[in-house]
Amino acid sequence: LTSKLPDVGTSIFSVMSQLAAECGAINLAQGFPDYDPPQALTEALARHARTSGHHQYAPMPGLPRLREAISRKTAAVYGVAAPNPDTEITVTSGATEALYAVLAAVVRPGDEVLVLEPAYDLYGPAIRLQGGIPVYVPLRVPEFTPDWDQVKAVLSPRTRLVMINTPHNPSGAVLTAQDMATLAELLAGSSAFLLSDEVYEHMVFDGQQHHSALQFAALAERSFVLSSFGKTYHATGWKVGYCIAPAALTAEVRRVHQFLTFAVSTPAQHALADVLADPEQYQTLPDFYQQKRDLFAGLLQNSRFDLLPSPGSYFALARYHRISQEGDLAFAQRLTRECGVAVIPVSAFYHDGLDQGLIRFCFAKRAETLTLAAERLCQV
Amino acid sequence: LTSKLPDVGTSIFSVMSQLAAECGAINLAQGFPDYDPPQALTEALARHARTSGHHQYAPMPGLPRLREAISRKTAAVYGVAAPNPDTEITVTSGATEALYAVLAAVVRPGDEVLVLEPAYDLYGPAIRLQGGIPVYVPLRVPEFTPDWDQVKAVLSPRTRLVMINTPHNPSGAVLTAQDMATLAELLAGSSAFLLSDEVYEHMVFDGQQHHSALQFAALAERSFVLSSFGKTYHATGWKVGYCIAPAALTAEVRRVHQFLTFAVSTPAQHALADVLADPEQYQTLPDFYQQKRDLFAGLLQNSRFDLLPSPGSYFALARYHRISQEGDLAFAQRLTRECGVAVIPVSAFYHDGLDQGLIRFCFAKRAETLTLAAERLCQV
Ligand SMILES: CSCCC(=O)C(=O)O
Ligand SMILES: CSCCC(=O)C(=O)O
Repeated sequence: LTSKLPDVGTSIFSVMSQLAAECGAINLAQGFPDYDPPQALTEALARHARTSGHHQYAPMPGLPRLREAISRKTAAVYGVAAPNPDTEITVTSGATEALYAVLAAVVRPGDEVLVLEPAYDLYGPAIRLQGGIPVYVPLRVPEFTPDWDQVKAVLSPRTRLVMINTPHNPSGAVLTAQDMATLAELLAGSSAFLLSDEVYEHMVFDGQQHHSALQFAALAERSFVLSSFGKTYHATGWKVGYCIAPAALTAEVRRVHQFLTFAVSTPAQHALADVLADPEQYQTLPDFYQQKRDLFAGLLQNSRFDLLPSPGSYFALARYHRISQEGDLAFAQRLTRECGVAVIPVSAFYHDGLDQGLIRFCFAKRAETLTLAAERLCQV
Repeated sequence: LTSKLPDVGTSIFSVMSQLAAECGAINLAQGFPDYDPPQALTEALARHARTSGHHQYAPMPGLPRLREAISRKTAAVYGVAAPNPDTEITVTSGATEALYAVLAAVVRPGDEVLVLEPAYDLYGPAIRLQGGIPVYVPLRVPEFTPDWDQVKAVLSPRTRLVMINTPHNPSGAVLTAQDMATLAELLAGSSAFLLSDEVYEHMVFDGQQHHSALQFAALAERSFVLSSFGKTYHATGWKVGYCIAPAALTAEVRRVHQFLTFAVSTPAQHALADVLADPEQYQTLPDFYQQKRDLFAGLLQNSRFDLLPSPGSYFALARYHRISQEGDLAFAQRLTRECGVAVIPVSAFYHDGLDQGLIRFCFAKRAETLTLAAERLCQV
């Protein structure tokens, strides 16, 4: 069987998590918390596990009560008209499935898809599996801000889709309202759609705000906006996310979604619907994660790692001092083995493996974990 | 947004379930039980919902303990060497995701994929989304047995994949050992792979046996074999299935799976791993469903519906007496509205909508439900 993705190996997140497990290293690599979801949510899952009638297929677009709760929450958080749960919201098997479904629904062979790099490792291969051509535009290092002139320069009638991710994985950069307005202007003259990956929407720090594509009418009308309960509720293993898009776009996402996975776990959807009306979890999330970021940054101050500022997400990048010609992947592996802390090499987020001597830490960890990891890192 | 699947509407299963709900009809349309999973399984889910540490990403190929349990069960049930859990088993978001992942991994633009019709409604569109060309071979009506000469006639070097489904949805037909041996011979001279959809593996009646592609070495070496916990454990809403394939084929499935959904619900996988070692559920399933089939067939004996024999699955087809020029979809809708029983028109399983005056009943329902449905159907 000749591979359709011969150059794509196992996702770096699996590779590093496995190495971490083998070495008994602290896993600051793959992005997931080392604490549990709020008890209200786990109790809700236990309750629905025991509820007769909650074990068969959910409706293909998602449980109505969950879509209604998403609609109300979206309107409340972003001050926008509530998306129509019947026609504009689709529940997916994590934001990953939403990403893939949008790409499969929108990208035709030969279409160009604009990707700002560094980018989440699935974007490129998933575009190519549709026969699409990823067109990469680098973010400016070290702020990881977009150069809109460069974006404008590569936008063309062949551009089918532009992908953005704010807050940004791996850098934590957050697009400003001005960024969003500029993007809206650029796209106004084009036929391109926008995929806005906003899974870290509730992790923006220092009093700043997340700006959703939903809040810019000129973007919203052409946007697929993705989010993830896994991120917001410390439940990455539940695999529940969603896509909000205008009715005509949602119809195409659902045409694919019904063949990709058909539907999402019924008990998990019921449990999430139970807790979503209460804003506490997402309202407290910025402080919760800012404290972790600041704790970790403080602890690394006297280390050989220069942490870059992270305005959002649960990731922070660090520059390290290279020894010899070692690449960032080799460094990350050595750090895992020798220092007992697993991290992600940022070259994994570049299609050409661009190596800038940067690694990514996930700080979605308990204070004890961050403290122990920092102790080890300070000994490097 | 011009559609990539302009001729594909909402899945017939969603359409009929929604109509059933609107009309308050008994839903014998979409395939799912109206009873719950075994209590051991629902209690296990409740337990894992409350277990700290069981809420983050499972490993991409599936929880090791679940893959090990699948391996042992497969060896025990089919008398084959235990598939290697590390390299030959992948847990997916239902068999639906496994199907899609296999197609995305294997089918290149222009490849032909051989499909025996009637076929599950996702096969054709999912093949076309990969740029593949479905080549349809009709099963012989009313037994729904393959005409292997016709299969041989269309097999060519362009055939990338052959898809079989045993027990068969919608007809319940079961491939014989002779069928499997003939297929093995046909494929021996070709470079085609085999996708064997065996989600109803434990629903074969009248003392007959399911023959898995895993049991025929000449097939197993080129096969992706799919199964579904949803079917075997009355938990269609949990969305957990799996794919067994030789290591080289599994590697390609995983390359796609990691971008399609990445991983499957951690608490659900733990719960399934807890119960899979006990054979009771799948050993008692043939009798359990044969009783339902026979009950329903008996109750319909004096109706205007001629039930065809169903040797497997939880479906049975019926011929009805056409009134006027009404198609089977219109008939199914009218039956739902006027008689209060929802069914699936078999034309939905043909790419060209071939209408043979057949409808599909799902008999995975409690005796009371089947009795009430039959009372209504006998009044037609
Ligand atoms: C799906 S595993 C990767 C998790 C994640 O989002 C990350 O580590 O970047
Ligand atoms: C995924 S909904 C369809 C369920 C099913 O397998 C069927 O009804 O044929």
